Amino acid sequence: GMDGAPPPTSPTGLSAYVAVSQLLGLTLLATTGAWLGRYRGGVAWHSPLQFNAHPLCMVLGMVFLQGDALLVYRVFRHEAKRSTKALHALLHGLALVIALVGIIAVFESHRTKGIPDMYSLHSWCGMAAFVLYLLQWLLGCGFFLFPGASFSLRARYKPQHIFFGITLFILSITSCLLGITEMLLFKISDSYSHFVPEGILANTLGVLLVAFGLVVSYVLTREEWKRPPLAEEMALSMDFKTLTEGESPGGGS
Amino acid sequence: GMDGAPPPTSPTGLSAYVAVSQLLGLTLLATTGAWLGRYRGGVAWHSPLQFNAHPLCMVLGMVFLQGDALLVYRVFRHEAKRSTKALHALLHGLALVIALVGIIAVFESHRTKGIPDMYSLHSWCGMAAFVLYLLQWLLGCGFFLFPGASFSLRARYKPQHIFFGITLFILSITSCLLGITEMLLFKISDSYSHFVPEGILANTLGVLLVAFGLVVSYVLTREEWKRPPLAEEMALSMDFKTLTEGESPGGGS
Repeated sequence: GMDGAPPPTSPTGLSAYVAVSQLLGLTLLATTGAWLGRYRGGVAWHSPLQFNAHPLCMVLGMVFLQGDALLVYRVFRHEAKRSTKALHALLHGLALVIALVGIIAVFESHRTKGIPDMYSLHSWCGMAAFVLYLLQWLLGCGFFLFPGASFSLRARYKPQHIFFGITLFILSITSCLLGITEMLLFKISDSYSHFVPEGILANTLGVLLVAFGLVVSYVLTREEWKRPPLAEEMALSMDFKTLTEGESPGGGS
Repeated sequence: GMDGAPPPTSPTGLSAYVAVSQLLGLTLLATTGAWLGRYRGGVAWHSPLQFNAHPLCMVLGMVFLQGDALLVYRVFRHEAKRSTKALHALLHGLALVIALVGIIAVFESHRTKGIPDMYSLHSWCGMAAFVLYLLQWLLGCGFFLFPGASFSLRARYKPQHIFFGITLFILSITSCLLGITEMLLFKISDSYSHFVPEGILANTLGVLLVAFGLVVSYVLTREEWKRPPLAEEMALSMDFKTLTEGESPGGGS
């Protein structure tokens, strides 16, 4: 903007990218719904349609909500860290609960139909993503929400938390793409190669998932868009830096 | 180490991670070879085995060589930037040629067998990864190897080049996982769910691909392991910073 003193960063660009990410997120939810509703008979729990709750819950929980939970520190960049942190943990918690429902759906549906569990690459990647995501959430709560963890411990864990956070988000999206491919080859293996509408729609869902992951990752990793520390946090961080630099002179790795 | 003056960064940790990445890289090549050799009849060009050149070339080019090309700035962190840059471009160029051979293999094999091209999510993601990788290579050469591009243009493109470089590496690995899933559901759809050795082996290849991507991404994104600018580069960069900061006061985005 051209009004007043120029801010140190450009929130205009950030807002546009966040808006695009939310548009992509809603579009991929709608596309999942359209696929399941139009071609797969819809979603229901106590019925042969129970399986369909799996893709819906995983896209909603492990992709849309997980992605939005990662974005809160960029979107609410000038709010108090305390409340942003709570929202971050809450959204991830909600994502985990919805993902758990999605996992129960596929296990119950397999049991009903007599299909073995956990044999495919999709199931290996997806289960790894879910279990590590739960672990990451528990560690995050332990390090950053409970008052027990020391300042120095938090600072040492934070880069790992961020790296594995983005990694698990990408692994979740990858697992969805594997699930789409499996489902298409199970359900429309004969017509998929003839470019039938269901195949095109499901492929498009895959492309939307990649696009959502791309935009969210871009927003998260762009240096100028990182959350600026508030004045009081800055002061604390300075003190902390002085403390730790004097602390362990020969400290390894 | 405890010898002499302590270095500002810890190359010991870096070396260990790079060693693990290379071990994973060689293991995933061996696993691909084992799968194709033991269960898929091996690899040959003018034969019904031509298709098998596809997974082999893509894993070698789009994953192993692409990953190693990304690592050169960390591995040769104290070499002249000029030669490291040349090696980076060369490895990516080699990766592109090998990937092209792999793409020709699948198109020719499809033509021979009368199978349609480009209908699957694997083909969409894989082709996008290859075309954008080629584009990224051309842009990289244009901006960083030819002497024409201005210093300020290079500095503005560099963060984009790095972000899309890691992104395309991840998309390449994702495409491989989709390819593994497709191939298993085409070839062993009846026995896959019974945990046959071929299924376990191919799933393990998928896990190794994820692990390689994880370790390479970790090495690339860890702040302390970034290549430190040499003394003369530092001086140039200072000059440049002074220049650009005076250059465009209201510059956008």
